[in-house]
Amino acid sequence: MPKSKFAKESLTINTEHVLPNDTNHIGNLFGGRLLQWMDITGAISAQRHCRRVCVTATVNNVSFKYPIKNNSIVTLEAKVSRAFNTSMEVFIDVFVEDQVTGVRTKCNEAIYTFVAIDQNGSPLPVPELVPETEEEQKRYDGALRRKQLALILAGRMKPDEAVELKSLFVHE
Amino acid sequence: MPKSKFAKESLTINTEHVLPNDTNHIGNLFGGRLLQWMDITGAISAQRHCRRVCVTATVNNVSFKYPIKNNSIVTLEAKVSRAFNTSMEVFIDVFVEDQVTGVRTKCNEAIYTFVAIDQNGSPLPVPELVPETEEEQKRYDGALRRKQLALILAGRMKPDEAVELKSLFVHE
Amino acid sequence: MPKSKFAKESLTINTEHVLPNDTNHIGNLFGGRLLQWMDITGAISAQRHCRRVCVTATVNNVSFKYPIKNNSIVTLEAKVSRAFNTSMEVFIDVFVEDQVTGVRTKCNEAIYTFVAIDQNGSPLPVPELVPETEEEQKRYDGALRRKQLALILAGRMKPDEAVELKSLFVHE
Amino acid sequence: MPKSKFAKESLTINTEHVLPNDTNHIGNLFGGRLLQWMDITGAISAQRHCRRVCVTATVNNVSFKYPIKNNSIVTLEAKVSRAFNTSMEVFIDVFVEDQVTGVRTKCNEAIYTFVAIDQNGSPLPVPELVPETEEEQKRYDGALRRKQLALILAGRMKPDEAVELKSLFVHE
Amino acid sequence: MPKSKFAKESLTINTEHVLPNDTNHIGNLFGGRLLQWMDITGAISAQRHCRRVCVTATVNNVSFKYPIKNNSIVTLEAKVSRAFNTSMEVFIDVFVEDQVTGVRTKCNEAIYTFVAIDQNGSPLPVPELVPETEEEQKRYDGALRRKQLALILAGRMKPDEAVELKSLFVHE
Amino acid sequence: MPKSKFAKESLTINTEHVLPNDTNHIGNLFGGRLLQWMDITGAISAQRHCRRVCVTATVNNVSFKYPIKNNSIVTLEAKVSRAFNTSMEVFIDVFVEDQVTGVRTKCNEAIYTFVAIDQNGSPLPVPELVPETEEEQKRYDGALRRKQLALILAGRMKPDEAVELKSLFVHE
Repeated sequence: MPKSKFAKESLTINTEHVLPNDTNHIGNLFGGRLLQWMDITGAISAQRHCRRVCVTATVNNVSFKYPIKNNSIVTLEAKVSRAFNTSMEVFIDVFVEDQVTGVRTKCNEAIYTFVAIDQNGSPLPVPELVPETEEEQKRYDGALRRKQLALILAGRMKPDEAVELKSLFVHE
Repeated sequence: MPKSKFAKESLTINTEHVLPNDTNHIGNLFGGRLLQWMDITGAISAQRHCRRVCVTATVNNVSFKYPIKNNSIVTLEAKVSRAFNTSMEVFIDVFVEDQVTGVRTKCNEAIYTFVAIDQNGSPLPVPELVPETEEEQKRYDGALRRKQLALILAGRMKPDEAVELKSLFVHE
Repeated sequence: MPKSKFAKESLTINTEHVLPNDTNHIGNLFGGRLLQWMDITGAISAQRHCRRVCVTATVNNVSFKYPIKNNSIVTLEAKVSRAFNTSMEVFIDVFVEDQVTGVRTKCNEAIYTFVAIDQNGSPLPVPELVPETEEEQKRYDGALRRKQLALILAGRMKPDEAVELKSLFVHE
Repeated sequence: MPKSKFAKESLTINTEHVLPNDTNHIGNLFGGRLLQWMDITGAISAQRHCRRVCVTATVNNVSFKYPIKNNSIVTLEAKVSRAFNTSMEVFIDVFVEDQVTGVRTKCNEAIYTFVAIDQNGSPLPVPELVPETEEEQKRYDGALRRKQLALILAGRMKPDEAVELKSLFVHE
Repeated sequence: MPKSKFAKESLTINTEHVLPNDTNHIGNLFGGRLLQWMDITGAISAQRHCRRVCVTATVNNVSFKYPIKNNSIVTLEAKVSRAFNTSMEVFIDVFVEDQVTGVRTKCNEAIYTFVAIDQNGSPLPVPELVPETEEEQKRYDGALRRKQLALILAGRMKPDEAVELKSLFVHE
Repeated sequence: MPKSKFAKESLTINTEHVLPNDTNHIGNLFGGRLLQWMDITGAISAQRHCRRVCVTATVNNVSFKYPIKNNSIVTLEAKVSRAFNTSMEVFIDVFVEDQVTGVRTKCNEAIYTFVAIDQNGSPLPVPELVPETEEEQKRYDGALRRKQLALILAGRMKPDEAVELKSLFVHE
């Protein structure tokens, strides 16, 4: 197993065509269907990073701001943003493109974490992630803060120990 | 439209049978499939509260702690935990039952928010939620803190304004 | 294995959202899709009664009286009505709810029988069923008559032996 | 609309390949999936008889005697057995074939009734059915008895009026 | 294994109902869905000829000349046209029928080849095909020319060796 | 509408995870499922070139040389290779990647043609395609020969008129 890998090595692209069964009766894509597509694309991205079977560990705050219409072409792009011991944080960016102009609009951004496991379901170590671009660096930096927040919300870390997160609230 | 409704009026139960196509190759349910089932069950629960078309607005932190095996019987129970002006927070509890003993184990708990919309996609007001049981009250109280956290993470609220959340970090 | 169980212990609830692919071109739910949903819900109910793998043995007369429209919320409720040596009769009640008023209308009632089997497909004994409510008692009583009718129709019982059923036709 | 049609004109054949998601965990086809396939094939057969949209009205006693294994080739053959004013009784015969010898075994026989409807869902008259072969004649004759039984079970006919059915029980 | 079989012994009929998810947004059946249906029907036909597991080897030129509308009844008829050592050429004819008149129109004709394989994926010999009708003979004769063309296009045969095909271009 | 576009502007990538229902019982991906995935990916590519609704016109010779196993990650990459008046030829390259080493192997190459249509299904003109890389140029050049071959096979061109194709057989 390599000691570290670049973010771009885990890039996974998925192009989906929104069909009638994917939409509610005012013709917009169901959130649940998009959550599933994001999970599939994100899991493949994590597997490309660590070359192991990966299972979904957590889904961070996902917002559905823009309705996506029936018959839209939706593109999902997933990339590992940071690797911890046995888990990987993955960003999934979702774009919809205008059929006539071809202009791509970002309509969603989700953060999932995945864990690499062996045949018994026990966690396995994964390579480190090396960010290259400015956006990759920014997402890499934010990953630690999000991990602390998740641990606090799960009651497995005390707020005082979450140094980076605490600084949002306490200005000394 | 009634001015308020009880949490139990929105209870929605869904029983799913995990099939081969729902599982990865070590035989565990995909996280993405569960996310979709939770979205469907939660959306019906929100619709039962407000009697309007509801769309998924956000998915809060979801953790997948326990693997669910192929052929499991999975029960999802969704109930509105709090209503704001046009949005509703919904808890979805997920149980798996032992085939032999019938013992039900809670294996997941997710929080989604849904928005009631009209035919043009504009938000509509929803009835207030009145909690009754102890657990309903606890979830009702926590909903405000989660809303503040979501607004901060989305950059639409300043940490200093999130009074309830701030108290986690600052002990005056 | 317990010697007997109550009907309510096998209650199984399933909530389905009717999508375009579930409907014919005047927008009504296909009978075949409902038959499948009823089978899934009924089989889980039978498994909850006997804690064994159950397979569909027979489908009794099912009538489709009320068309169910696209986008409806359909709720299926299944409960074992009587247990014989290795088979269980299950009632599946189907409700559709008005989206605006929330009023639930019963639109269907089906009776399936399931058999508990082992890994080789051989039938296994199941616990007795103890009815509690008036409706449970009425369905329990009718189960024997339905079983006799099925045996006659299959040519495995002589009409003269079907004492309870015969009384419908012969008034002595 | 023709005044009458032959049974063979409504023959509809469907060949299905049993896949993993169609089977329970001892590898047998779910009864509910077969019920759905029978409904689809039967409805097309009814439409071929009357050239109208047809909806499922009732499902008569269906028995699942022989388990059908994963990967089987299943052939469904549906033919109208008798036409009444606005409804048609359809027999659906189900065969499974041995992969090595090619020997076809009949593993199921189901009887559905369908109703022809207009755009508002109102029933429409259908052509009469003219049986030709010995089996077609036998099924044609039995259809009346089955109709009487269904009406009695639904409480819409008195047992004494069901002359043909009564003769099974009363030997004068 | 028999030394030879008739074309009619491999006849496989499949009847499909075009649903919303099978169509694009001007309401026509997707080519890809039809390709899949043709593959399933053709593979069963090949298996009926040789009684072995068959896998798709090639798809010949398929043209989609006539759009097939949502809600159409589509009938696929597949028959082996010629058998080579381990491969079989299969014709799949596709018909759509007018809902009102019942008139069947041929809307497609595809040619696939399948290979019989054992559990390790190695090719197995198959029986010869004996054409009977005039159309079967014509398709049998053309099969050799199509095989030569495929070999040339794949670079595995020199044009000069493709005697039958060459005669199309060279008039001596 | 632009007068011409580059091949790379139509690049469409799709990543699929092979599930149990996609495979036959020796665990290999069905050809029909891959044909459908190639059709979806190719159609989106054609739509990106012309910004119109596109329908499948023809499928050229497709060969399935390498079996793809259950649980494989399959990547499809589609790009327009040449545009004619109203039709576009699209190459779809299919890769499977080794789960452990990540090495990508090309396992398939298919050529589809699509036609741009208006709301009535009438063909619409499309922009020209400008090849840039060596491979794009080679595929662009071959497209004319393939078009001639298709026209001859369909009986709409005389072999003598297919100058480029004829040169394969006649060495003057």
